[in-house]
Amino acid sequence: MSSPPNSVLKGQTALPTDKVQQIGLLDAVNDKYGGVVVDMKEPMDSHIYVPLLRASISQWRQQGKKGVWIKLPIQQANLVEPTVKEGFRYHHAESNYLMLVYWIPDNPDTLPANASHIVGIGAFVMNNKREVLVVKEKHGYFEGKDAWKFPTGVVNQGEDICAAAIREVKEETGIDTEFMEILAFSQTHQQFLGKSDLFFVCMLQPLSFDITKQDSEIKAAQWIPIDEYVNQTYNREHKPFEYVAKICLTKSQSNYGGFSAVHTLTSSGKQPYLYFNGQDFKP
Amino acid sequence: MSSPPNSVLKGQTALPTDKVQQIGLLDAVNDKYGGVVVDMKEPMDSHIYVPLLRASISQWRQQGKKGVWIKLPIQQANLVEPTVKEGFRYHHAESNYLMLVYWIPDNPDTLPANASHIVGIGAFVMNNKREVLVVKEKHGYFEGKDAWKFPTGVVNQGEDICAAAIREVKEETGIDTEFMEILAFSQTHQQFLGKSDLFFVCMLQPLSFDITKQDSEIKAAQWIPIDEYVNQTYNREHKPFEYVAKICLTKSQSNYGGFSAVHTLTSSGKQPYLYFNGQDFKP
Repeated sequence: MSSPPNSVLKGQTALPTDKVQQIGLLDAVNDKYGGVVVDMKEPMDSHIYVPLLRASISQWRQQGKKGVWIKLPIQQANLVEPTVKEGFRYHHAESNYLMLVYWIPDNPDTLPANASHIVGIGAFVMNNKREVLVVKEKHGYFEGKDAWKFPTGVVNQGEDICAAAIREVKEETGIDTEFMEILAFSQTHQQFLGKSDLFFVCMLQPLSFDITKQDSEIKAAQWIPIDEYVNQTYNREHKPFEYVAKICLTKSQSNYGGFSAVHTLTSSGKQPYLYFNGQDFKP
Repeated sequence: MSSPPNSVLKGQTALPTDKVQQIGLLDAVNDKYGGVVVDMKEPMDSHIYVPLLRASISQWRQQGKKGVWIKLPIQQANLVEPTVKEGFRYHHAESNYLMLVYWIPDNPDTLPANASHIVGIGAFVMNNKREVLVVKEKHGYFEGKDAWKFPTGVVNQGEDICAAAIREVKEETGIDTEFMEILAFSQTHQQFLGKSDLFFVCMLQPLSFDITKQDSEIKAAQWIPIDEYVNQTYNREHKPFEYVAKICLTKSQSNYGGFSAVHTLTSSGKQPYLYFNGQDFKP
């Protein structure tokens, strides 16, 4: 949390000199890695901010601190240029804030990397008539292509892969499903603004069968025989699609061990999903 | 590319009025999604920039453009606040630039999401004496814990998972390896600044056996019997570690189908790796 400007000014003008340094600093919390984090929640004029930042860095340097993180909400965009001028670089940004970072020690920084991957899912849903659930999209890569495709979508920040697959199928087709296995995944680089993409092919069991398609994104949605899906010209002409189609066909006909999902519990109370071959390993 | 300020000023003062609008705009390139991208490579004073930005948005609006992307190198930090004041939000940032975005249409935006995941690997490397390659780290989560762990590390931006596993083993232990399979993976949320983590357990075949440990990060590195690794107190007390250790033990003793990697080729010339159960599906 940052000091509101009023209290800072009061500190700099009304208190005895020996207290000025203590008060004329940015509010910071220690992180677990020997660094400090400043969250500038309140507005501040840059003429007040810069001397506080300089005094703070000087003190953190004396204290042997390493990484200095400054989180600037977008409302405090006036402080971006002054922070950069003090030697900070950008670390990452989300819609409503920018995180800047400064490494105090002389040795190379050990700061964590920015997120590097967007995660997507494709959903293989087959009913007991050996028909698969497919869509045609109004926009995007498949716009204008005469090919049926699996429902696909982006995994939201904080969302589990298995939950994202269920959500996307429901949104695009109205079909309720249960997650079964991940059958395959791909990693593709330079997909968007230098970032990479991890795309997981998920097999889901349908729990309902009447399609209600989403009008905004989906041009058509229906059940078609799996052989018709696999043998589409598009799939035969595009290697990754051909592989995925044939892996799904294999799964539908014979033994194919995909990765099922098991909820685990860590000592810190988190509950990550672990995905592994549940046919070959039974916990 | 942005117009250098000189040519812009020249356009505004020296050319006939009917040409002013054409020249007094920011240089932009169209993207594939009906939007435009401005890369402000050259410095510009904000008093010149703001009128250009306003005129440009007005024209893009008339042209029916959707998303407007402005990439500001960190050297142009002076333009962050003016861009935000014109209604832009942050999209993402890397060390040396900030990307801002503005959605012109009235309907909700369909802008792509920021990257959401950091990707890591752990390497299971076993020699023909049933010994696994393990390390103790100087810093980080395992600092001070008396537990042997697999070599681990973060997948760099643009790096393949299978390549990252080989690199990390080489860096930490000096051992050369060949990638075999992904045996399991986990997805954990809120790992760092709100981002999630995908961690892939990779099995690698050792091609050399003499350890040269990395001094800066690794306290100790050695080959230990797999049973000793699996039965460590730490693994028995931490569920995800117990699962992974037992999956590796299963792999070492009997049939366990992990996901092997196959290079594919897309129509756009990219060569993504596809990971799938290569025991159960032969392309």
